[in-house]
Amino acid sequence: MSGVRDTEELRPWQKKMNEVIFGSETPAGKWFDIVLLILITLSVIAIMLESVPNYREKYGVELHMLEWVFTGIFTAEYVARLICVKKPIKYMLSFYGIIDLLSVIPTYIGIFYSGTSALRVLRCIRLIRVFRILKLSQFVDDANYLITALKSSKNKIIVFLFTVTLLVIILGTIMYLVEGAEGGFDSIPRSVYWAIVTLTTVGYGDISPTTPAGQFVASFIMILGYAIIAVPTGIVTNEFIRKGKAEISNRACPNCSKDGHDADADYCNHCGSKL
Amino acid sequence: MSGVRDTEELRPWQKKMNEVIFGSETPAGKWFDIVLLILITLSVIAIMLESVPNYREKYGVELHMLEWVFTGIFTAEYVARLICVKKPIKYMLSFYGIIDLLSVIPTYIGIFYSGTSALRVLRCIRLIRVFRILKLSQFVDDANYLITALKSSKNKIIVFLFTVTLLVIILGTIMYLVEGAEGGFDSIPRSVYWAIVTLTTVGYGDISPTTPAGQFVASFIMILGYAIIAVPTGIVTNEFIRKGKAEISNRACPNCSKDGHDADADYCNHCGSKL
Amino acid sequence: MSGVRDTEELRPWQKKMNEVIFGSETPAGKWFDIVLLILITLSVIAIMLESVPNYREKYGVELHMLEWVFTGIFTAEYVARLICVKKPIKYMLSFYGIIDLLSVIPTYIGIFYSGTSALRVLRCIRLIRVFRILKLSQFVDDANYLITALKSSKNKIIVFLFTVTLLVIILGTIMYLVEGAEGGFDSIPRSVYWAIVTLTTVGYGDISPTTPAGQFVASFIMILGYAIIAVPTGIVTNEFIRKGKAEISNRACPNCSKDGHDADADYCNHCGSKL
Amino acid sequence: MSGVRDTEELRPWQKKMNEVIFGSETPAGKWFDIVLLILITLSVIAIMLESVPNYREKYGVELHMLEWVFTGIFTAEYVARLICVKKPIKYMLSFYGIIDLLSVIPTYIGIFYSGTSALRVLRCIRLIRVFRILKLSQFVDDANYLITALKSSKNKIIVFLFTVTLLVIILGTIMYLVEGAEGGFDSIPRSVYWAIVTLTTVGYGDISPTTPAGQFVASFIMILGYAIIAVPTGIVTNEFIRKGKAEISNRACPNCSKDGHDADADYCNHCGSKL
Repeated sequence: MSGVRDTEELRPWQKKMNEVIFGSETPAGKWFDIVLLILITLSVIAIMLESVPNYREKYGVELHMLEWVFTGIFTAEYVARLICVKKPIKYMLSFYGIIDLLSVIPTYIGIFYSGTSALRVLRCIRLIRVFRILKLSQFVDDANYLITALKSSKNKIIVFLFTVTLLVIILGTIMYLVEGAEGGFDSIPRSVYWAIVTLTTVGYGDISPTTPAGQFVASFIMILGYAIIAVPTGIVTNEFIRKGKAEISNRACPNCSKDGHDADADYCNHCGSKL
Repeated sequence: MSGVRDTEELRPWQKKMNEVIFGSETPAGKWFDIVLLILITLSVIAIMLESVPNYREKYGVELHMLEWVFTGIFTAEYVARLICVKKPIKYMLSFYGIIDLLSVIPTYIGIFYSGTSALRVLRCIRLIRVFRILKLSQFVDDANYLITALKSSKNKIIVFLFTVTLLVIILGTIMYLVEGAEGGFDSIPRSVYWAIVTLTTVGYGDISPTTPAGQFVASFIMILGYAIIAVPTGIVTNEFIRKGKAEISNRACPNCSKDGHDADADYCNHCGSKL
Repeated sequence: MSGVRDTEELRPWQKKMNEVIFGSETPAGKWFDIVLLILITLSVIAIMLESVPNYREKYGVELHMLEWVFTGIFTAEYVARLICVKKPIKYMLSFYGIIDLLSVIPTYIGIFYSGTSALRVLRCIRLIRVFRILKLSQFVDDANYLITALKSSKNKIIVFLFTVTLLVIILGTIMYLVEGAEGGFDSIPRSVYWAIVTLTTVGYGDISPTTPAGQFVASFIMILGYAIIAVPTGIVTNEFIRKGKAEISNRACPNCSKDGHDADADYCNHCGSKL
Repeated sequence: MSGVRDTEELRPWQKKMNEVIFGSETPAGKWFDIVLLILITLSVIAIMLESVPNYREKYGVELHMLEWVFTGIFTAEYVARLICVKKPIKYMLSFYGIIDLLSVIPTYIGIFYSGTSALRVLRCIRLIRVFRILKLSQFVDDANYLITALKSSKNKIIVFLFTVTLLVIILGTIMYLVEGAEGGFDSIPRSVYWAIVTLTTVGYGDISPTTPAGQFVASFIMILGYAIIAVPTGIVTNEFIRKGKAEISNRACPNCSKDGHDADADYCNHCGSKL
């Protein structure tokens, strides 16, 4: 992103425009972000309503026109972004550049292939742009805190998910043998799907064991799932606590070099010298 | 609430009455609270029973009469509260003042519009008044502890809920494309509803994927939901532990009386004097 | 229990018998406990099998005879306990004395009132006796650890459960108004039941919202339930950690009186003197 | 395993082979593991596809041939392992030796008893071999961390699971009495199964209470299950935090080289020398 914001060779009006569109420090930049957030939200609501058969019948024309309005605005925004960045190609190929383009293209393609509802729905991709706007909010620190903690525990969570995956394949296969096709367990993939539904305690009930032996194995899977949810919870909680402590304890005493002082400490609690 | 309890300009009998009705320090005040708690509970049970078709048919008249008794008592209590506060208007416009009024009004309106069962049910709002009475209990400290810890983690929980909301919209839209109307995923809002049912591991089973591709995406959502429940749990647990520690280490400094020192602190970390 | 074990005035053979039946320190006492544990388990399995229509038809007579064997043994055990305790009346009125009696009585009553399957099932109460036998196991410390930690967090959990109860009544009432009888929400108690099923993420699907408004409220309840499960988890985890720390840190240094030493520490980590 | 890797008396080419097949330190050993991992994954996918009626009809012959290819490779691997270990018998009787054999035998038996789909499915057992290969990965430390923490909390989790087992038997029996055969609670084992489905918050909905009394008991079980999930979570989280702390404070004493000192320790708590 740093390359995108490098505005040194831009003309003054481009610099100004860049500040508003890409930045969020100036009042105008903040307003731009808020207006964009509202527009994205409204356009996604419109797409969602259009997918409801009732609304499509009654307000189809209005929703279609509305979509063209949103597409027009977002296209103008995309062009504006291209104009005011120093390296347009780099922006176009960046993650958000691609998302910005994918947010408007489906509507234009829709002119030629009118039947593609899948294409229309793809416009929902513009929802991802909301995350870019969030950089202005007071929640950025909290979001970063959560992301950092989750990143630290990434490897442990991968180990856990890998073990769970092997477990549901083995348990699903056992259930396929125990229950058989009558109970809805008519293939291993389907039985594995059922094992996931059960282990995660979701429990739709579209497939459920009917034989005593199947119900016994199912009981085992349920209690297992009930117990091992403790593992990801323990991993993440531990990481949060470590991070919380690390934040507090990064101030060392200049005299005795004891660290681990509270965030609001003015004097070292070991030797009494000023921090 | 402080304005409500300002009884300096009230006459002696009003002061006495205020102590009983609003306070919970005197024996009479405690009894008043307990009796009110029982009355509210009984009246809510009566409303609940009235909503059961069987009971309404058999005991409709008795329940109707009982409701008038409760409404009479609560109206008298409301008038009594108005009489014994210094600033009746302020009380009327306070949160609990409005709740107190809304607890009795539906019954009176019911005289003119007899068919409104919705109105009758609205009387359940009086259940909220229970929270006011709880101030007398031994659980107040524990409740405050929980509330403070949850408030501290408010921002992180908002970030989490916001991310979950974006996630279910995106996942719901994907399922709408993957499964289509046959499987019950006949609109995006309905698919988003299904994604919430699945991610939170509720899993009604009223809508469930039938195609292999849909079951694959569903499996992903389920395991995601199973894993990310660790995040709110980690946030709240971390906050409880931080708060718990702060409570433990409430050694006050003899010089500046700052408390919250670590268990092994030798000097005050605020003024540097020896503890 | 201490009164029951007061065997000073008992004759030698009674003392011996008491040691075997009530104690678990002697080899004979341990064997008695293990045999009793197996007998209870077998008798409960027999009761469970008898409740299955298929088995009752085929093996009804055998299971009936087996039950009389178990009842005979447990009756003999009950009489033996009465004989070898110093204060038989006190034992009879103690918690386990009553449980012991209730474990055999239903079979005897069954002679006169043959139709009472409820009575037969009541014999399952003997399962509770398993908890008494557990005193011999190596798990006693861990069980006590868990019980103490849960007791410390009792008040906070009561506050949580009370809030959840009020919440499901209010949310259930709202759903009763929003969905109405068509969706299965035909009374407030039933809607409250549904709210509990949803908030706890059980989600049977026997009642589920069908209107968009109902699904919106349901989504809110689900996400709420998904998030607030963090509260009991946080409470209990915090208590476990506090208890874990308290166990470690109850050794003070005789020289500088710093406490919080590790369980395996030989020297004070603050002043270096021997602990 | 140490005996298996004792290659001192092996000839040079056997040593080389052993390094590749059993080891993962050499590049060739790593490649062998990766290729094996891919083969196992592909063969399990083939078994899963063969179980789907549609695929079996269309690609039955191809999948059957593919299975013989995989069996051939795995048989060659098994023989190679036997050749290059010092004590072949010891390997054959080791856990992974048996798994390796069970991975190929079902296909061979299938020649004589063609109808046994159960036998074919048993080949899924080769999935367990994946765990052996994982020793090469960067996740080994994280996996060991999780396993050690879970082992430390083993006893507490057993106590918890035992209590839950007694609880669901008692609650299931109560529901059998309260609901009866009409609601699907037609035997105690089935009611216990339902109690497990409910307590673990899975909630299939294949059996669900229909009477008010049954729904009341069910509500109690659900809230109980919602609350006591905090117990395993608390146990595991506590263990993770304790282990996490032990890892952080791995400052070794210069005198006795004991590590695991607190972050603020000035003297070694084992020998008393200054850190």
